[in-house]
Amino acid sequence: MYSFKNDYSEGAHPRILNALIESNLEQEEGYGEDSYSLKAIDLLKQKLGRTDVAIHLIPGGTQTNLIAISAFLRPHEAAIAAKTGHINTHETGAIEATGHKVVVAESDEGGKLTPEAVQAVLDAHPDEHMVKPKLVYISDTTEIGSIYTKGELEQLSEFCHAHNLILYMDGARLGSALCSEGNDLELSDLPELVDAFYIGGTKNGALLGEALVICRDALKEDFRYYIKQKGALLAKGRILGIQFLELFGDNLFFDLAAHANKMADRLREGLSEANFGFLADSPSNQIFPILPDILISSLQNNYSFHVWEKVDSDHSAIRLVTSWATKEEAISAFLEDIKELAKC
Amino acid sequence: MYSFKNDYSEGAHPRILNALIESNLEQEEGYGEDSYSLKAIDLLKQKLGRTDVAIHLIPGGTQTNLIAISAFLRPHEAAIAAKTGHINTHETGAIEATGHKVVVAESDEGGKLTPEAVQAVLDAHPDEHMVKPKLVYISDTTEIGSIYTKGELEQLSEFCHAHNLILYMDGARLGSALCSEGNDLELSDLPELVDAFYIGGTKNGALLGEALVICRDALKEDFRYYIKQKGALLAKGRILGIQFLELFGDNLFFDLAAHANKMADRLREGLSEANFGFLADSPSNQIFPILPDILISSLQNNYSFHVWEKVDSDHSAIRLVTSWATKEEAISAFLEDIKELAKC
Amino acid sequence: MYSFKNDYSEGAHPRILNALIESNLEQEEGYGEDSYSLKAIDLLKQKLGRTDVAIHLIPGGTQTNLIAISAFLRPHEAAIAAKTGHINTHETGAIEATGHKVVVAESDEGGKLTPEAVQAVLDAHPDEHMVKPKLVYISDTTEIGSIYTKGELEQLSEFCHAHNLILYMDGARLGSALCSEGNDLELSDLPELVDAFYIGGTKNGALLGEALVICRDALKEDFRYYIKQKGALLAKGRILGIQFLELFGDNLFFDLAAHANKMADRLREGLSEANFGFLADSPSNQIFPILPDILISSLQNNYSFHVWEKVDSDHSAIRLVTSWATKEEAISAFLEDIKELAKC
Amino acid sequence: MYSFKNDYSEGAHPRILNALIESNLEQEEGYGEDSYSLKAIDLLKQKLGRTDVAIHLIPGGTQTNLIAISAFLRPHEAAIAAKTGHINTHETGAIEATGHKVVVAESDEGGKLTPEAVQAVLDAHPDEHMVKPKLVYISDTTEIGSIYTKGELEQLSEFCHAHNLILYMDGARLGSALCSEGNDLELSDLPELVDAFYIGGTKNGALLGEALVICRDALKEDFRYYIKQKGALLAKGRILGIQFLELFGDNLFFDLAAHANKMADRLREGLSEANFGFLADSPSNQIFPILPDILISSLQNNYSFHVWEKVDSDHSAIRLVTSWATKEEAISAFLEDIKELAKC
Repeated sequence: MYSFKNDYSEGAHPRILNALIESNLEQEEGYGEDSYSLKAIDLLKQKLGRTDVAIHLIPGGTQTNLIAISAFLRPHEAAIAAKTGHINTHETGAIEATGHKVVVAESDEGGKLTPEAVQAVLDAHPDEHMVKPKLVYISDTTEIGSIYTKGELEQLSEFCHAHNLILYMDGARLGSALCSEGNDLELSDLPELVDAFYIGGTKNGALLGEALVICRDALKEDFRYYIKQKGALLAKGRILGIQFLELFGDNLFFDLAAHANKMADRLREGLSEANFGFLADSPSNQIFPILPDILISSLQNNYSFHVWEKVDSDHSAIRLVTSWATKEEAISAFLEDIKELAKC
Repeated sequence: MYSFKNDYSEGAHPRILNALIESNLEQEEGYGEDSYSLKAIDLLKQKLGRTDVAIHLIPGGTQTNLIAISAFLRPHEAAIAAKTGHINTHETGAIEATGHKVVVAESDEGGKLTPEAVQAVLDAHPDEHMVKPKLVYISDTTEIGSIYTKGELEQLSEFCHAHNLILYMDGARLGSALCSEGNDLELSDLPELVDAFYIGGTKNGALLGEALVICRDALKEDFRYYIKQKGALLAKGRILGIQFLELFGDNLFFDLAAHANKMADRLREGLSEANFGFLADSPSNQIFPILPDILISSLQNNYSFHVWEKVDSDHSAIRLVTSWATKEEAISAFLEDIKELAKC
Repeated sequence: MYSFKNDYSEGAHPRILNALIESNLEQEEGYGEDSYSLKAIDLLKQKLGRTDVAIHLIPGGTQTNLIAISAFLRPHEAAIAAKTGHINTHETGAIEATGHKVVVAESDEGGKLTPEAVQAVLDAHPDEHMVKPKLVYISDTTEIGSIYTKGELEQLSEFCHAHNLILYMDGARLGSALCSEGNDLELSDLPELVDAFYIGGTKNGALLGEALVICRDALKEDFRYYIKQKGALLAKGRILGIQFLELFGDNLFFDLAAHANKMADRLREGLSEANFGFLADSPSNQIFPILPDILISSLQNNYSFHVWEKVDSDHSAIRLVTSWATKEEAISAFLEDIKELAKC
Repeated sequence: MYSFKNDYSEGAHPRILNALIESNLEQEEGYGEDSYSLKAIDLLKQKLGRTDVAIHLIPGGTQTNLIAISAFLRPHEAAIAAKTGHINTHETGAIEATGHKVVVAESDEGGKLTPEAVQAVLDAHPDEHMVKPKLVYISDTTEIGSIYTKGELEQLSEFCHAHNLILYMDGARLGSALCSEGNDLELSDLPELVDAFYIGGTKNGALLGEALVICRDALKEDFRYYIKQKGALLAKGRILGIQFLELFGDNLFFDLAAHANKMADRLREGLSEANFGFLADSPSNQIFPILPDILISSLQNNYSFHVWEKVDSDHSAIRLVTSWATKEEAISAFLEDIKELAKC
């Protein structure tokens, strides 16, 4: 049984575990004030080419989203997201639990937001009888594996600045996005383009941990209070610092993402060769091939994955996710199996 | 420089790191449904002698408190805590941020609550113009290192049941409490006595992780929704399961706590022999000796610790915390240094 | 200038003001425990034919919705509403501000929910990574003037009971609904069919005030705490009791609604005779005729009303609302004016 | 039976009801945009001698407090109040329900806060592990009938500005405060001294209604959103405007308060002459005489009032509240009765 269910099925990249072991018995300050976290933050600023951003290491993605969004918004303000946006559907109302509505904007088929879609939301919220849409939530890669081009992000960024909106990017899979074919964004472009974003560790080789980068001055104040209040200031914050230091000390973060993407590429190519179509164009580590239901059933004997949605009466799209840990042999075996099974 | 500042200065006990390494490349389900978490939960139930409790592994202590308390209470209900209670003063209003008031009850000098103190709170809240006090929050050990005897806990438990109150115990330092001199409670006594409690991992040798035990049926329903909504359902929940499995697979959890206590005992004895008094009677891994301010200054050259409070014009109490990782040599050195410095 | 903008343009029915004057100098208990409120509640129970419901008088509609829904739901539970539902779009995120998501269900063109639409929402929320839909919010009349038949409500009611959902009806315009042509519901049917609902006073002749009726026992407990916590327990609660006593002491409540509907009927007939069509079939006190934009502009010189939505390049639907206070002469004048203007 | 229980036992001053009747059938805009509310706000600005304040009319006091405080604070910030402060004890956790802790400061025996008391709170909240105290809540009169002198308020104001704190005054009984013997504040002094305050209508002759005055620019933005979100934007907002217009059109507001105070003065004098002492020095419309319990029992046959607290084994303090509606004859009768009863 091999799992393509997600990119967090394994533990951490071995170098990360080693780093934890090497530093294990050193005494460090608690609550993110340890020397590793401080160094990791400095290193990230260096990689971003910006010393004026604020960076906080936070255990998980939903947590990062809810802390950032609730810290950035005043009580009557709302977040705008695609229907497929993670905060809209897959975080158990975490944003609403902090008091804020998530307003759905029409997205293109790839789950991406455009200035036009955001404008339509603004138009529909003219006065104080409705919430005030204030923050635009996007993710790169999106929930369905698509990526933003630099041009698309620039347009959205200009629009948001012109309309006094906060542009926030969920980067749970930012590594994969930045290493995708067709991507023309660099990590260091982001502070210019968005007001805040996070660099996902959990889905790219860390045990846990996301690095929230706050680029706009007005959003930085007192931020550690919010982290603490939501229970996200780990006593042993060092374990986040050590991991990010390892991931960004050399090119490990990008190497891991590139591996995941390469494994997805091989799956995509193999499935295309076998004449299977795809639900959407996703150049990243998630692909959505459309398969006969009967074939899906057979595959489930040896592989685990999500059945994403019905496509027609006897076909469905499945989601295959690769990661830093995906083995080439597993890819080969899967492709062989599917070709074999498809014959039947 | 040696730190007695807290019990989370080091990483994790080496056996825990080993366990993470050994399981690292196995594929597991996400979000706490992995085989390690399931096994750890079974093991904990076994240790508690109860199969009918619900157990959830949660990354941190503040998080566990805020999730449990906000899940247990309806909007108009309040928690009762000692003034020194962690939720009252040291969690940045985490409970209030979920909508609930923390009502302060008078505690004895050790920071413990009694039925009389809780009764006084109830008396002061007779009708709907005030919140309805509903949950009694205690911790063992308390913030100032004292412990509840079985008799004390039984009295509080009876009182709470008689008054339809929820009794909740914060066990961030439960290991140390259960291994303290004078303790007559066993882990397996707790499900009978409290409605919910947590077993602290972070301060007793884990990298992170607390095990919340819900004993009362009415409090169990849909609990995973609350964990997810507050951002505490780790994608790689396995890292919590693996750690608790290691801590409770044999006697490691208690061995680590016993070591911490033994180190505190040695400090306590040494300081007593040197004729220093203590702010409070704390049989656990936190002690509060009263020292001349001038001596405190000198000690700070080689040791880090919290200065707890002024006692008189030229004396203060300091807090010394020991842990699973505290070295015997450090204790000896500290005691020698203090005796030497006290001579001057 | 005459306004058809809404049904709260005037003050209160004169009998209500008289009742306030007559009782004015009597000393009464505060916070809704006055003799008038108690009598009004008894009277409403009598009209409902049920002594086992709990009734609370609350100043406004948004307030009633937010108090009831936040009291009924646990933190992870969500309300289901039509896209046009008042809580979804026109209450500034009041429900989300109490921590709960409003999930949109597909409604029919009249803005009404069906079991199928609710089932689709349930299907899309299978587990703890999403909110748990728990309360179905409907309104009668709906935001666009349509009404539920008894059969429709019975179906929805059965579905909700079968799926352990709470069915809640916003009755801001319940008077008009119950007096509409085609209505086959009676006020006394509601406690059987819904778990809670409110009888709107503000839009049917009162200065302010809504009567919330809680029919399901499990939802009644401690309800006055919620009213107080949200700031809705008026010191002089008598002013709500006096008004409902006057409205229901004889048939005044229904007489006022019937008048509003009759005025709308006359508008509807007159406009039909003049060959204007309607956006939707609304048998109540709100109608949505489709007019040429140029005619709308002319009408705006003498009448105020909402322009509801563009229909085509040179037509729009407007909303005309009648009330207990609408004058027959105003209706006649409007119809004459429109016929005159339409000639041009 | 005559009630001295509170200052909201009767309806409204007859002139207010007349004003409601006279304007009753005029068509007005909804939601506080009616001409009466706009005029009332202009009038209040004139009385305050300031055109640059923002004024909002809100139905009730708890509502005003919770809307203002939750709008002014960011999520990690807390309000500071006296233990006796209304928001701390008598609003069912309304402030906490919006997510903010109420931190108790030591007050003097009259329930008033001083710069020293606020400083002590700041000292106890040094970092992000605790809430950030940000808003100082005071009331004039206080819960126990005392008043702030201009000098006291100036000191507190300077302190708050120096420490970047928001100074907020609950003026539920501001009329009585400003007309008390010993008062040297004028209504027009307040915008200089506090950042926001409200002028209480409900307890000074209105049916309902409080006028919130926001003096600091940074606190004004988007305020109507907050009112709407909390359900406090009345559809018929005119009823608030009409009342404040009547109260401040001439000197009615102050005349009513002066009457209430005069009635309390007569009670105070009569009780002093009869040699009864008082719990506290309260120059306003609430007095707290200390009486033998046996006498209290006898009085309760003919008068209703709150028994405030036990003073010794056979004496208690009671609270007597007078209002705009208190009758001179009732005062005379009460004083005669008490003298008569005291003889027995």
